[in-house]
Amino acid sequence: KDYSLPNASWSPDMVGLYNELLEKTTAGSWRRLPSYLYSGQFLKNFKSVIRNSTLVRTTKNSSLRFLTKMVAEKEGHGFEYAIFHNPLEKKCICLFQPGPHLEGLPGIIHGGALGTMIDSTFFITAYRSADAIFTGTMTIVFKSPVILGSVVRLEARVTGTEGRKVFLSCEAQNSDRTVLFAEASDCHIPLHPQEGMG
Amino acid sequence: KDYSLPNASWSPDMVGLYNELLEKTTAGSWRRLPSYLYSGQFLKNFKSVIRNSTLVRTTKNSSLRFLTKMVAEKEGHGFEYAIFHNPLEKKCICLFQPGPHLEGLPGIIHGGALGTMIDSTFFITAYRSADAIFTGTMTIVFKSPVILGSVVRLEARVTGTEGRKVFLSCEAQNSDRTVLFAEASDCHIPLHPQEGMG
Repeated sequence: KDYSLPNASWSPDMVGLYNELLEKTTAGSWRRLPSYLYSGQFLKNFKSVIRNSTLVRTTKNSSLRFLTKMVAEKEGHGFEYAIFHNPLEKKCICLFQPGPHLEGLPGIIHGGALGTMIDSTFFITAYRSADAIFTGTMTIVFKSPVILGSVVRLEARVTGTEGRKVFLSCEAQNSDRTVLFAEASDCHIPLHPQEGMG
Repeated sequence: KDYSLPNASWSPDMVGLYNELLEKTTAGSWRRLPSYLYSGQFLKNFKSVIRNSTLVRTTKNSSLRFLTKMVAEKEGHGFEYAIFHNPLEKKCICLFQPGPHLEGLPGIIHGGALGTMIDSTFFITAYRSADAIFTGTMTIVFKSPVILGSVVRLEARVTGTEGRKVFLSCEAQNSDRTVLFAEASDCHIPLHPQEGMG
């Protein structure tokens, strides 16, 4: 099941932005990315390498689940999101509606939840645009609090490379882009298949 | 219910470190902090201010839950942790056992989950030591991957102040402190009760 499709918990704002981006996929270079319960489902090249590593053998596979899908069955309670990728421009737009299970201070989003969505958007951008998968250093500047249930529009892009490192930046804004919730920068590092996991 | 008490999912490593710290609470200045499903349960001074704000009235209170307690009923699946505070030294130690629902790359922790635990430890340290509650800028340097089910020992401390800002640093290591998983820095900003939420 693809968990990035609209469901009944999505607000009109969220659905509106989603439909705008979906329209762009029919004409231009934008693509809608599906999203699954397990990370192995969206990793192409590295999947077999990582699945064979000692890291995986130490865990119980039956209950493994991608962090943002912790409560995926409870529609609207956790991370509701959809990510669109533009390979030519090396950027992603993520539409994110944080549910009531992502609380930090009363009524507003936990910094870790916004950080998780920023990290995931960085990951997808780096992976899809440059095959880089490990997060190196991430910096987040929190500007204003996000009310639970509102819509966050994240836009991440590759800003440059240095050796094997891929640098990215991200802005998190409200639906009409008049409020800046957070700015972030990040570097990602590729995994060469022959290296395994360390 | 206090969700920071040992349960059947805790590994011997986790229980061992917990008992070491518990011992320190009987003699010195360390305190074990309880941990609840809702953030309002651990906020003392700011609770009424924040509960009255417009931010809270827009959300459905019945399903609100602190991010790290998303799947608290499934022991061992999500964030298992206990935080100890030393008010004299203005620092906290958090013992954290990430469960299989916190996956990023196959078999290892999502950067956002480690970031969430770092952010929560920073928050508690800043709040308990300096009444500061808003995260300003957080930087995390990821050094080596954390295997799901292993133990992470986080130590955060106040490193200084500048005007109203409180600066902190944090190290995340393995149980015997021979592997550095991540280093982080952070600034927190106090909320004055008369200010409300903005």
